[in-house]
Amino acid sequence: MNGESGDKQQENDIAKQVAVLVQQAKALQSAGSSLSTRLRIEEQALSQQAVALEKKIGRLRADAFSALEKDELSQELAEKIEEDIQRAHGMVCEGDVGALLPPKFSGRFLRMLLGPVNVKAAETDVRFKAKEEYNAYRDRTAVLFLLFPCILLLSENWFWQGCFPALPVQAYQAWLLFFYTSLALRENILRINGSNIRPWWVYHHYCAMLMAVIALTWDIRGHYPDCKKKQRGVHLFLIWAVMQGGAMLLQNRYQRQRLYTRIALGKAGRMDVVWGEAAGVFGQLSLLYPLLFLLQVCQCILGFLFVRTVFRKDSEWQVVGCGLLLLIMAIGNFLNTVETLVAKMRI
Amino acid sequence: MNGESGDKQQENDIAKQVAVLVQQAKALQSAGSSLSTRLRIEEQALSQQAVALEKKIGRLRADAFSALEKDELSQELAEKIEEDIQRAHGMVCEGDVGALLPPKFSGRFLRMLLGPVNVKAAETDVRFKAKEEYNAYRDRTAVLFLLFPCILLLSENWFWQGCFPALPVQAYQAWLLFFYTSLALRENILRINGSNIRPWWVYHHYCAMLMAVIALTWDIRGHYPDCKKKQRGVHLFLIWAVMQGGAMLLQNRYQRQRLYTRIALGKAGRMDVVWGEAAGVFGQLSLLYPLLFLLQVCQCILGFLFVRTVFRKDSEWQVVGCGLLLLIMAIGNFLNTVETLVAKMRI
Ligand SMILES: CC(C)(COP(=O)(O)OP(=O)(O)OC[C@H]1O[C@@H](n2cnc3c(N)ncnc32)[C@H](O)[C@@H]1OP(=O)(O)O)[C@@H](O)C(=O)NCCC(=O)NCCS
Ligand SMILES: CC(C)(COP(=O)(O)OP(=O)(O)OC[C@H]1O[C@@H](n2cnc3c(N)ncnc32)[C@H](O)[C@@H]1OP(=O)(O)O)[C@@H](O)C(=O)NCCC(=O)NCCS
Repeated sequence: MNGESGDKQQENDIAKQVAVLVQQAKALQSAGSSLSTRLRIEEQALSQQAVALEKKIGRLRADAFSALEKDELSQELAEKIEEDIQRAHGMVCEGDVGALLPPKFSGRFLRMLLGPVNVKAAETDVRFKAKEEYNAYRDRTAVLFLLFPCILLLSENWFWQGCFPALPVQAYQAWLLFFYTSLALRENILRINGSNIRPWWVYHHYCAMLMAVIALTWDIRGHYPDCKKKQRGVHLFLIWAVMQGGAMLLQNRYQRQRLYTRIALGKAGRMDVVWGEAAGVFGQLSLLYPLLFLLQVCQCILGFLFVRTVFRKDSEWQVVGCGLLLLIMAIGNFLNTVETLVAKMRI
Repeated sequence: MNGESGDKQQENDIAKQVAVLVQQAKALQSAGSSLSTRLRIEEQALSQQAVALEKKIGRLRADAFSALEKDELSQELAEKIEEDIQRAHGMVCEGDVGALLPPKFSGRFLRMLLGPVNVKAAETDVRFKAKEEYNAYRDRTAVLFLLFPCILLLSENWFWQGCFPALPVQAYQAWLLFFYTSLALRENILRINGSNIRPWWVYHHYCAMLMAVIALTWDIRGHYPDCKKKQRGVHLFLIWAVMQGGAMLLQNRYQRQRLYTRIALGKAGRMDVVWGEAAGVFGQLSLLYPLLFLLQVCQCILGFLFVRTVFRKDSEWQVVGCGLLLLIMAIGNFLNTVETLVAKMRI
């Protein structure tokens, strides 16, 4: 008797607790959906205002410019107006409000690989974090980028008697493919989150991905001394990769410092960045630019050497293809570096 | 005189408009940051409640189970309790509230390729959309998956006199690499968004990616009739790919119908899905399962044939490697398909 009433007690207890649970879950669910509805309405209202203001900014900037051209505006006032407009632009197009603006850029590459997923971060500090993480990733991998070809080049003479075995070189190429894919994905995400990366730096990683795939299919096997001639391309490519790794480390140092200046300046627009630049990183730039140009010249020469093999009777399409891609990348890199330089000079 | 006063007029006009603009931008900015602050506070409160309720659900479920074991609970009441708990679980762990729960799963693969980006969609309908898009993507690509090897196999005899040239086969492998990478990325994103995909189906795509990379480095060039022997593996692989494409189309049909049932049932938990299944898709499953098992047997045989070449004197590591991967995939696929079947039977 006692046992049975104990059972009943237990039954009632659990049933009661479950009933309470269901009530709580219901309350939570409706709180959740009401929050999400309210949120959507408020966000939409702010987003419409932001779009309207963004248009107005464009219009006023054009007005001020044409007034300046027609001499209806003094130089002094024009500068003050431009500064104010810049400030308004920062408030509307960056930070919390900027996150509500419809994205300017919908990465085809991202959509192809990820599907229509939203990778736009809502909060500014998250966006800065993403950029910081990207820089940290580049730092970590730049070391690998430098080490991998160094080890291959050293082993060539020490262990492999002057001939690369195919596998380590292919493993290196597979790693490059992975690395460039991840850079391209991350840069697309940064662009969606409002970074001003020039599209070329992203395209240039697509070219590099294609080059890695082509290099994977390239058969470099052979015995000494035959292999020497066949593998001359591999050898040159690795040397160039070492140089590139060095430049990458330097470039990362510069970009990181630039980001810190930017964060220190708060929610900075482009203008602020340039001011920050004059202060801290100018010295680095004057070392970086010559090095980049040198690298681009080397890239060009390498591409040319590769393409030239098309006239040899044992020419391989992989070498010619990689050569063409190297030439395209060298020219694109050069043009874009010059354009960046010119843009920095102008301001 | 008139011109000058016109200028002044113009100057004042623009300056005034810019001043208004800056005011508006400031107001908008503070509205944006206040919204984002409020949002963060409310979300955090709801999220804490959701975590607490999720724990409670687990505890009550365990209590009910042990009471049932000890015969302190009637079967009937236990079923009602389980149903209620299930309902509460659906309300807390899916939908708007579920989106606020801390993610159970942080894809290493995603973090490696994308960095620490948030790909969790906030709204339930967006999450269903993502799944629908994933199914649509699989449909589109299944056709290519079927066509690509068919064309290669037909051309082998019609144009290429029994020998594959290397380039089209390598292009196919490069496409496979791209395809599997994108599937793996999308499935990781779906998992983060609460899908119950078994981890194996994702791992299995990592294996397939590795296989595509290995196949890319495989040199299949040769002249007739030498090539025949060397390319027998390619030939078999392509035939198997055609079969797989067929199964994929059928599997997609089934998965899509399953999703529609699920959407029709509203914010459904797993239970509802099983009920929906019994209704509509059972016929399809009884065709799909035998076909999947047949395919897995074929995959196993193919893997075995590839691995066996290790005993030939001209054996190539690429063939053996692909064979091992095929065997691993076949066994994993089989085990997981059986486990899914058993799980469906049990309910
Ligand atoms: C020239 C260079 C140093 C200028 O860098 P910069 O001063 O940051 O250039 P910008 O002011 O135009 O930068 C705008 C944005 O693009 C980003 N960016 C610039 N170059 C980039 C690159 N190569 N890769 C990725 N992002 C880049 C910046 O970080 C900045 O991002 P943010 O808006 O999120 O802050 C830089 O573009 C560079 O190093 N390019 C060299 C590439 C090259 O030729 N390599 C040699 C062969 S591989
Ligand atoms: C066996 C099979 C038909 C079961 O499918 P199912 O009934 O949807 O299985 P479950 O109920 O376990 O599904 C749970 C979740 O995993 C998903 N899922 C199941 N199998 C999947 C697969 N192979 N790929 C991607 N997602 C899959 C489902 O869509 C569902 O997602 P949801 O929670 O977002 O709705 C399916 O797993 C399958 O087709 N596997 C065969 C793979 C194979 O062996 N291929 C042959 C060689 S390539």
